[in-house]
Amino acid sequence: MTSMSGAGAIAAQTDHLADHLADHLAEFRIASEPYYRPVGQEVELFDAAYQARMPIMLKGPTGCGKTRFVEHMAWRLGRPLITVSCHEDMTASDLVGRYLLDAEGTVWHDGPLTLAVRLGAICYLDEIVEARQDTTVVIHSLTDDRRILPLEKKNEVLPAHPDFQVVISYNPGYQSVLKDLKESTKQRFGAIAFSYPEPAIEAEIVAREAGIERGTADMLVRIAQRSRNLKGHGLDEGASTRMLINAGLLIAKGIAPAQACQVAMVLPITDDPELRDALTAAIAACL
Amino acid sequence: MTSMSGAGAIAAQTDHLADHLADHLAEFRIASEPYYRPVGQEVELFDAAYQARMPIMLKGPTGCGKTRFVEHMAWRLGRPLITVSCHEDMTASDLVGRYLLDAEGTVWHDGPLTLAVRLGAICYLDEIVEARQDTTVVIHSLTDDRRILPLEKKNEVLPAHPDFQVVISYNPGYQSVLKDLKESTKQRFGAIAFSYPEPAIEAEIVAREAGIERGTADMLVRIAQRSRNLKGHGLDEGASTRMLINAGLLIAKGIAPAQACQVAMVLPITDDPELRDALTAAIAACL
Amino acid sequence: MTSMSGAGAIAAQTDHLADHLADHLAEFRIASEPYYRPVGQEVELFDAAYQARMPIMLKGPTGCGKTRFVEHMAWRLGRPLITVSCHEDMTASDLVGRYLLDAEGTVWHDGPLTLAVRLGAICYLDEIVEARQDTTVVIHSLTDDRRILPLEKKNEVLPAHPDFQVVISYNPGYQSVLKDLKESTKQRFGAIAFSYPEPAIEAEIVAREAGIERGTADMLVRIAQRSRNLKGHGLDEGASTRMLINAGLLIAKGIAPAQACQVAMVLPITDDPELRDALTAAIAACL
Amino acid sequence: MTSMSGAGAIAAQTDHLADHLADHLAEFRIASEPYYRPVGQEVELFDAAYQARMPIMLKGPTGCGKTRFVEHMAWRLGRPLITVSCHEDMTASDLVGRYLLDAEGTVWHDGPLTLAVRLGAICYLDEIVEARQDTTVVIHSLTDDRRILPLEKKNEVLPAHPDFQVVISYNPGYQSVLKDLKESTKQRFGAIAFSYPEPAIEAEIVAREAGIERGTADMLVRIAQRSRNLKGHGLDEGASTRMLINAGLLIAKGIAPAQACQVAMVLPITDDPELRDALTAAIAACL
Amino acid sequence: MTSMSGAGAIAAQTDHLADHLADHLAEFRIASEPYYRPVGQEVELFDAAYQARMPIMLKGPTGCGKTRFVEHMAWRLGRPLITVSCHEDMTASDLVGRYLLDAEGTVWHDGPLTLAVRLGAICYLDEIVEARQDTTVVIHSLTDDRRILPLEKKNEVLPAHPDFQVVISYNPGYQSVLKDLKESTKQRFGAIAFSYPEPAIEAEIVAREAGIERGTADMLVRIAQRSRNLKGHGLDEGASTRMLINAGLLIAKGIAPAQACQVAMVLPITDDPELRDALTAAIAACL
Amino acid sequence: MTSMSGAGAIAAQTDHLADHLADHLAEFRIASEPYYRPVGQEVELFDAAYQARMPIMLKGPTGCGKTRFVEHMAWRLGRPLITVSCHEDMTASDLVGRYLLDAEGTVWHDGPLTLAVRLGAICYLDEIVEARQDTTVVIHSLTDDRRILPLEKKNEVLPAHPDFQVVISYNPGYQSVLKDLKESTKQRFGAIAFSYPEPAIEAEIVAREAGIERGTADMLVRIAQRSRNLKGHGLDEGASTRMLINAGLLIAKGIAPAQACQVAMVLPITDDPELRDALTAAIAACL
Repeated sequence: MTSMSGAGAIAAQTDHLADHLADHLAEFRIASEPYYRPVGQEVELFDAAYQARMPIMLKGPTGCGKTRFVEHMAWRLGRPLITVSCHEDMTASDLVGRYLLDAEGTVWHDGPLTLAVRLGAICYLDEIVEARQDTTVVIHSLTDDRRILPLEKKNEVLPAHPDFQVVISYNPGYQSVLKDLKESTKQRFGAIAFSYPEPAIEAEIVAREAGIERGTADMLVRIAQRSRNLKGHGLDEGASTRMLINAGLLIAKGIAPAQACQVAMVLPITDDPELRDALTAAIAACL
Repeated sequence: MTSMSGAGAIAAQTDHLADHLADHLAEFRIASEPYYRPVGQEVELFDAAYQARMPIMLKGPTGCGKTRFVEHMAWRLGRPLITVSCHEDMTASDLVGRYLLDAEGTVWHDGPLTLAVRLGAICYLDEIVEARQDTTVVIHSLTDDRRILPLEKKNEVLPAHPDFQVVISYNPGYQSVLKDLKESTKQRFGAIAFSYPEPAIEAEIVAREAGIERGTADMLVRIAQRSRNLKGHGLDEGASTRMLINAGLLIAKGIAPAQACQVAMVLPITDDPELRDALTAAIAACL
Repeated sequence: MTSMSGAGAIAAQTDHLADHLADHLAEFRIASEPYYRPVGQEVELFDAAYQARMPIMLKGPTGCGKTRFVEHMAWRLGRPLITVSCHEDMTASDLVGRYLLDAEGTVWHDGPLTLAVRLGAICYLDEIVEARQDTTVVIHSLTDDRRILPLEKKNEVLPAHPDFQVVISYNPGYQSVLKDLKESTKQRFGAIAFSYPEPAIEAEIVAREAGIERGTADMLVRIAQRSRNLKGHGLDEGASTRMLINAGLLIAKGIAPAQACQVAMVLPITDDPELRDALTAAIAACL
Repeated sequence: MTSMSGAGAIAAQTDHLADHLADHLAEFRIASEPYYRPVGQEVELFDAAYQARMPIMLKGPTGCGKTRFVEHMAWRLGRPLITVSCHEDMTASDLVGRYLLDAEGTVWHDGPLTLAVRLGAICYLDEIVEARQDTTVVIHSLTDDRRILPLEKKNEVLPAHPDFQVVISYNPGYQSVLKDLKESTKQRFGAIAFSYPEPAIEAEIVAREAGIERGTADMLVRIAQRSRNLKGHGLDEGASTRMLINAGLLIAKGIAPAQACQVAMVLPITDDPELRDALTAAIAACL
Repeated sequence: MTSMSGAGAIAAQTDHLADHLADHLAEFRIASEPYYRPVGQEVELFDAAYQARMPIMLKGPTGCGKTRFVEHMAWRLGRPLITVSCHEDMTASDLVGRYLLDAEGTVWHDGPLTLAVRLGAICYLDEIVEARQDTTVVIHSLTDDRRILPLEKKNEVLPAHPDFQVVISYNPGYQSVLKDLKESTKQRFGAIAFSYPEPAIEAEIVAREAGIERGTADMLVRIAQRSRNLKGHGLDEGASTRMLINAGLLIAKGIAPAQACQVAMVLPITDDPELRDALTAAIAACL
Repeated sequence: MTSMSGAGAIAAQTDHLADHLADHLAEFRIASEPYYRPVGQEVELFDAAYQARMPIMLKGPTGCGKTRFVEHMAWRLGRPLITVSCHEDMTASDLVGRYLLDAEGTVWHDGPLTLAVRLGAICYLDEIVEARQDTTVVIHSLTDDRRILPLEKKNEVLPAHPDFQVVISYNPGYQSVLKDLKESTKQRFGAIAFSYPEPAIEAEIVAREAGIERGTADMLVRIAQRSRNLKGHGLDEGASTRMLINAGLLIAKGIAPAQACQVAMVLPITDDPELRDALTAAIAACL
């Protein structure tokens, strides 16, 4: 293994590593400003938290813009962004790294979290509550004042780059009671709450992203509000901003609004005939 | 690993990769028009969604033609089609790829999703709800405006080919409550609903596919309708269009219609003597 | 991997593969006619289904001759037969194949299903309902008009040999409610129902297979009928034709009939003293 | 892999294999007659079953001599004996074999069942009901008239040596309802029932095996009978013949009978103070 | 493997190992005094326990300073500290070590526990109750007078360095009944109980760590006390000292106190609107 | 693999193996007499059982001296001792051995049980009931008169060294009903029961091991007796002898007795305030 090589080899490797990291920095840096329409003080709060390198939790329903927000903040702060979509089969090694077999034997291979720790990136763990608890535990020593990542399989302790920050997202709407973050994880984070934007702002976003007229966007937002009122009455979640944009995109391609709303806002979220009728009526009432 | 090779080696590899992808394009392209008889506006809707590269969910019972439809659309749009039959033991690596051991060490091996992302293919994930949630999560960054596939094991971010699209199928009839798509997955998709075709159209399809006369096909459709009325009264699903074609194929080989219907439309779907009698009586009534 | 070799190497490999397949054809071909005594139209039905290359499901209790029937049909149709005994730990890779490590790196190794697809064999999946659902899903694209097997780990799509057919067996007697085929699997198959033969035919079979006189065989069949009447009254299944043959074999080696019946028809299927007494009395009454 | 070598190499290998198997034959052959005291017609029944190569199931409580019996029969029939203690983590590969990595790549390594099939040994699967069902399924094609073992990972079909036989043991006393053999497995076997020997015979066995006087052995048997009467009244099983021999061995080393019985017949099977008192009283009454 | 090498090779390796361990000693040694404000006799108790090399269990709620305390003690005692965050997917091998594949074959790789045993470090197993029981069992022979670590995969018995000590943490507040340490583990440890510091001490800590004025820190402590009173009334835990520091850090970056408390002390720990209102009112009352 | 090498190579290897085993003998032999204070006839019983090579089960609560006893007996009998702490993730391979990859391919690596079988050691399986049942089954053929260990992965049958013996420990106090030894395992063992020593003996042990005065030890034993009376009234187990020694060690380092008892005898075993008060009162009453 490389850690047993002589000093010359290590020096050569370090240079190589620096090149390698520089390549990655370019790959994960966000080239142009991602459109984000602030709806409250979220930009200022995130900025203050980042200055203190405090880990941040973004709470809110699906499709309301959390991912776009973190992309926007990474661009604004000039940091590379490494995003990991968490899932229940993700292991700690998927985050931290593992040894892979190469022609010269096993070679350590950084996981995305380790790469972010080295690069000083913002590491965004999307829907972290879906991951097994070992994933959560892995970030503990990075989210207190130690700011270290033990690479246990290498018997190394990696200090975080001064610019490194952890951001996680969390949808309080649909976690089961069985799946939740541990108290000792939650207490490490500052939290910023998100919800769907105010109607006027949401219509502005939909019109811009789908390339449709403002009036059509206003209509889609009115339908969304009726859909969101059905949450808890058979619907797990109402229509998200993302779904409005999907409906808008179909309208922009020439599909009639009623059908576009069926395809983008009704059929994806319910199989129940009564709910489908209720949503269809809501659409008809807004057209 | 290749990412550590010098520039010359990378150039050579890129050429090789281009050849390799061209080979695959030919393999996954659909050579001749697959027969598909439209039953509504599904062709126009799919076409509009594809122009917006919107991910599409095909909803409907088994054997009603969803797979044939996506083959037809791939042919019509001139895109290669990569189909993956999902199942509960499928992992994210089965979709994305993995390192395999070669004579020169480990070599990255694209999974079918990654290949589709590179080729600009339509990637059809059949019965995605059967897969574990990590499969679903893997497509998240491909089904929003990011259109990227993080190859976490390679620490690479692969941008999707401009022609790439994700299509999934979903049978609302028999999912258990425990197995469903996550809200954050569903909301990314436009959905098109399928059901069995109208009788006249279904008979047209059966006659053509089984090579039988229209009158015999009409009779098989009448039996199917009676079978479908038993859904929920002991049958999980009634006879599908596919089963009618199977019965027709046996008739075309000289098996008596009553026996052909037993073999193709009764015995495969029930072990219950009473249901079997009810179905047999329905067949007798239609002969 | 072979898919990256030059054209000359591929040509050489193809020749080698052809030799290799020819070897397998010989190994899986059934040399002499397996004895099978038809009890209905099963031979004609199977023949018609095979002409249409329709996948076939053989339904019936254990030990009634399903395996022998498929051997007989493979011989009659002149096709090699590849049989797989399914079980709950069988994975899709067990059927399709996997990469194995060789001196020159990893080499793809066909599973029995893939081999059958290449050879144009009949692939018989015995007790498929025992397998995990990924096994079932693997045969989906082989059991509709696509007739292809995606080798996902190789990113290859293997078209089935024109003579290839899938046959599965299914015992409706003892599946739990939790373990059943999916609707989308069942609907692909034509089904042929089996049960124990009529007494005269069964005695003919037992006499022939065990090498005993017809009178003794008649007596064993009478005992079996009494045993089968106890099904559901403490017995999961009554004595099968196979058990009668076992009793006959012991009688042919000089064991007294009463003891032979104990060893072959009572002790293997029950530990319950009352049932054992009931069966013993049934035996005594028939001797 | 060897199956791809030229003809000369195969010939050499076959010679090597023959030598190798001859070595194994010696290793698994039973050198001297194992002491076994018949208690019924079990020797004759096993002999007749073996002549028909019928698979045999030995049923009975733990420690009553099933293992010794099969050793005795293997010696008597002049066959090597390969014993496998089954357990719930045993896989089909543990029985059949697997590829192992060698200096020249992967080499197939026979499992004990495959070795027995090649050698013509008696393969004794002890407590098979403990194994997962894939173990059971693996023996199906060896326990009907096919007498073949498909080595699926090698795509080979291995015909059984003419002398090969399968023997399994089964303790009906303590299987849970969840763990049982499948009907399709049970029906393949002839069964021989075992229980503890008659008192005089059991005392003869204990005296011989422990090296104690007959009078002491008689006393131990009387204690055992009282212990066996407590079965179902708090004890899962009474004292087995094996436990009597253990008590005898301690007595032969100078331990007082009361204490020897505590150590060998009371403390190992109960932690319950009342049962311990009951057993202690039973011992005292017999001394 | 190295254990089969000649004497010369072993001598060379031992030198190499000594160098290697010296490197690690430096890496795990704590360079400067970590700030710790004692709240009772915990320093003296830990010191006495360490003199007897008695294993120590630190009990108390999350975020009250257990990790900082052990860092402080390691610095005070001049011992390197190896910290392991335990989780439910951690295996014994993750602690002890494993063989990894190198260019020259497999090489043994010490896990963090083994490294601590060799170095004479304090090994701190954080939240050990989260680990599977095999982790716990692994420390048994290190936490009684044997003070050995069997490296079973190497067939070696490693005696602990005279300075080695095991420390574990344990949060009695939120273990489920299903997850607890075994009695035979608990009884090996001396235990020191932690809770949140007295208000004056806690404010001193918060002011120092967040860089805010004492008055603001006093206010945050008053809010924390109200939050802690809600424990058991909907909150799993009240606000920890760590959360107060987080709030302080945001205030120091210019965020208004009310909003800083929302971000750091309310939103991370509850999604319940009523609790959120109660906490918000508590904050307002203290401002 | 070595079993395929020529005769010369085997001879060389055997010499090497003999050297290797001799090394291990030294490593596992107990150098000086471990202090053990007999409390009954356990030494004589173990001695007699060992003369008959009867497997022995040591039953009793945690921390009462079972491990020390087996160390003492191994020293007294002059046998090496190989101890394995069993746990629920331990597999049969962990005990028996496995193939590891070396520079020359795979090399067999003895597990601790196999090593003990070769060396003629006493193999002590601590808390065997924690292990999965495959561990238990593995010792079956070693704990009856066969005294063989089948190395199934090597197709070898290893006869036990004449001095080999199996010892297991078992704590009847806290096994769940789900986890118990199988009857067929229990009946192979002679059992010796342990409990805490009589007060005078226990005080003698505590004084000696902790290096404190007899009076202080007497006081600790009186506290322990009160603690043990609380077993079943909220405590799973009372204070063990080991805990008394821990309290003594702290007292010897200058900690006040009341506090030493809190640290060593109260806090490690209960989180319940009422029980803590009861134990504290018991301590105060004895001081």
